[in-house]
Amino acid sequence: MNPLPTSERTPSGAARRRFLKRGLALGAALAAAGRPTPGPAQPAPDDPSKALGGPIRPYGEPSRFEQTVREKFARSKTDEVAVANFTPLDETLGIITPSSLHFEVHRGGVPDIDPRRHRLLIHGLVDRPVTLTVEEIKQLPSTGRILFLECQGNSQTEWRAPTGRTVKATHGNTSCSEWTGVALSLLHREAGVQKSAAWILAEGADASGNERSIPMAKAMDDVLVAYGQNGEAVRPENGYPLRLIVPGWTGNINVKWLRRLKVVDRPYLTRMDGVGQPVLMPNGKGRHLNFVMEAKSVITSPSGGHRLSSPGFREIRGLAWSGRGLIRRVEVSTDGGKTWRDASLQTPVLRFAHTRFRLDWRWDGREAVLQSRCTDESGYVQPTLAALVKARGLNSRFFNNAIQSWRVAADGSVHNVHV
Amino acid sequence: MNPLPTSERTPSGAARRRFLKRGLALGAALAAAGRPTPGPAQPAPDDPSKALGGPIRPYGEPSRFEQTVREKFARSKTDEVAVANFTPLDETLGIITPSSLHFEVHRGGVPDIDPRRHRLLIHGLVDRPVTLTVEEIKQLPSTGRILFLECQGNSQTEWRAPTGRTVKATHGNTSCSEWTGVALSLLHREAGVQKSAAWILAEGADASGNERSIPMAKAMDDVLVAYGQNGEAVRPENGYPLRLIVPGWTGNINVKWLRRLKVVDRPYLTRMDGVGQPVLMPNGKGRHLNFVMEAKSVITSPSGGHRLSSPGFREIRGLAWSGRGLIRRVEVSTDGGKTWRDASLQTPVLRFAHTRFRLDWRWDGREAVLQSRCTDESGYVQPTLAALVKARGLNSRFFNNAIQSWRVAADGSVHNVHV
Repeated sequence: MNPLPTSERTPSGAARRRFLKRGLALGAALAAAGRPTPGPAQPAPDDPSKALGGPIRPYGEPSRFEQTVREKFARSKTDEVAVANFTPLDETLGIITPSSLHFEVHRGGVPDIDPRRHRLLIHGLVDRPVTLTVEEIKQLPSTGRILFLECQGNSQTEWRAPTGRTVKATHGNTSCSEWTGVALSLLHREAGVQKSAAWILAEGADASGNERSIPMAKAMDDVLVAYGQNGEAVRPENGYPLRLIVPGWTGNINVKWLRRLKVVDRPYLTRMDGVGQPVLMPNGKGRHLNFVMEAKSVITSPSGGHRLSSPGFREIRGLAWSGRGLIRRVEVSTDGGKTWRDASLQTPVLRFAHTRFRLDWRWDGREAVLQSRCTDESGYVQPTLAALVKARGLNSRFFNNAIQSWRVAADGSVHNVHV
Repeated sequence: MNPLPTSERTPSGAARRRFLKRGLALGAALAAAGRPTPGPAQPAPDDPSKALGGPIRPYGEPSRFEQTVREKFARSKTDEVAVANFTPLDETLGIITPSSLHFEVHRGGVPDIDPRRHRLLIHGLVDRPVTLTVEEIKQLPSTGRILFLECQGNSQTEWRAPTGRTVKATHGNTSCSEWTGVALSLLHREAGVQKSAAWILAEGADASGNERSIPMAKAMDDVLVAYGQNGEAVRPENGYPLRLIVPGWTGNINVKWLRRLKVVDRPYLTRMDGVGQPVLMPNGKGRHLNFVMEAKSVITSPSGGHRLSSPGFREIRGLAWSGRGLIRRVEVSTDGGKTWRDASLQTPVLRFAHTRFRLDWRWDGREAVLQSRCTDESGYVQPTLAALVKARGLNSRFFNNAIQSWRVAADGSVHNVHV
């Protein structure tokens, strides 16, 4: 690896002194891109240095001029229980997703859990079944790691036609946090897992009855029982007070509101293991017990719904991640996949974490099709949609990690397309 | 470096199966440690899986059962303008400080700035003076990095006597975020910095008139003009909409609410450069233009105000950081500095970022004095208070990076002490 972090390198000589020439047109571009207009009742002072500022707050909030929020998706407008909340990936920055903007998917609403009364039961094929309070878990040897989560349903609308209008809609069911907790392997050793144990069954405390089967090899490898997210308690929507964190594996196996771990001798084929969420193959059979989120990337800016006001410089920005570990490379095409250039990766590049990529681009004012394609440490290369459909058919629904295409029209508008 | 991240290694064999023996006593320990009692009006359901959960929110918040907040320090109870807000380091987890709990120090209150009207002026010894909008800056080639900030006044109460009762009071003026923005070197090249330029003067837009002089070598090295903090816009208290980020250097040089960068030929010796914040040496002379935050560490748990309910296992946790770059090593003593053991460091260990350290400890029920001592990549070792006082006297006020001591009394109570 280059000893100088990518983030510290400056653009090449050729790129110098060309950015600011575009001047005020850039501001107009973003204003036209459909971001909500800030609407505070009171205007800010003309010169803030001539006015005393406001008081401090015990727990901070964003500026009143910022209105970045998640977007709710549900089958009906009145449904508050089986819903998803999508991260606005074109507005988030860096690799850490603010906890307040982390994606969420619920089937029983967000439970209201008193941590003083919550318990984690570990039982089944163990020598010493144990019931732990949250405070007891917090006192155990701890560990922490920056990890992405992705719902296996992310991009599920994109198999047949370019449906999502924005990157929030097409890819907003992935986020990345620093998780803190206890190694599950430690809890297993405490409980004394028996030799016949081969799987665990993890159960959440919400009304959806989410249960997932996890092979013991993974459970003893790098799984966490997390109580911390981005430096503070896990948020209610993300599993407060305890969430199972299974690096690189599908979102719903990272069981929220974790209350029970049963050590067992086989997978239980629960609804969420497969019957309720099968990957339908071309022969009509369902593939169950799907775990790993394969390598995936997406350009978050420019992306659907944006508008480039005029030709000139534009930094292409995006995110890449892989359930197999490190992202080794991200390539970007601006001509629909005919030619590719390597994007720079923000360091540190971390295993099982979002990786931020960037590439300088000069839009010439003509139609362009933007794509990103990542390669992970296993050598796996993110597939085209055509290749994915060839292997999995059109009813696969989950685990769509295909290359995403954004078409920049001659008028600067950006749209989701299949090419 | 060990190829296996520290965070993935499990405790040594000797440590196994001893944690849970302490059982319920741990919960009682924390309950007695003085955390505020959650006080929601409505109790949570007895079994949350038997009740439908609540709706989602566009922008999330902590659980109603969490009450972790910053602590305000001011010269008078009614002062809302010249105040500090301290991060509760014994409650934060991992290396990312939640933006809502980031420390803050103000001398003119928190300005209310409309980003659409805010401008950054770059002028002075440049070929092309330029005025930039926030949106223009956001369109430039971007970069991001996880970096600590520390106020040079952090631990200033601790020179003569152990004054702060908690780690929040003694060390809570440091925090760590992922910052996103534009390399200052890029802006300088755009403006065409002239050969006679040797320093820059950075000015904030708040009522305090904060101006700081920065040598050009640092300005062209790794300084950022940041608009992003932990994935979203910089918080108002931390400089919204633009903050200068100067890796490893004292907090107030990371000018908040940045509105002007003047390229100049000498340091301007502004009030905040030194006249108003000198480091007083033993001979009575003031040392001005102080920049680098030297290596420092602190045990955050157990720490002042905590109480251990009974002898047995306790994980010692803390943070270390250095303005010279990487933390190479953290040693922990439980006998007031007579013997030391190496703590494990959470990976990735990043230059200029908080580094989380941990060490298994078994309290034998007798008085103990806990200390941590870090070494950075320059080979610098965090000094004892005695060594620091010997070099700098007792009126130095700022830049106190001495080893901190917490005394665990036989009754389990933990207190700030000088040894």
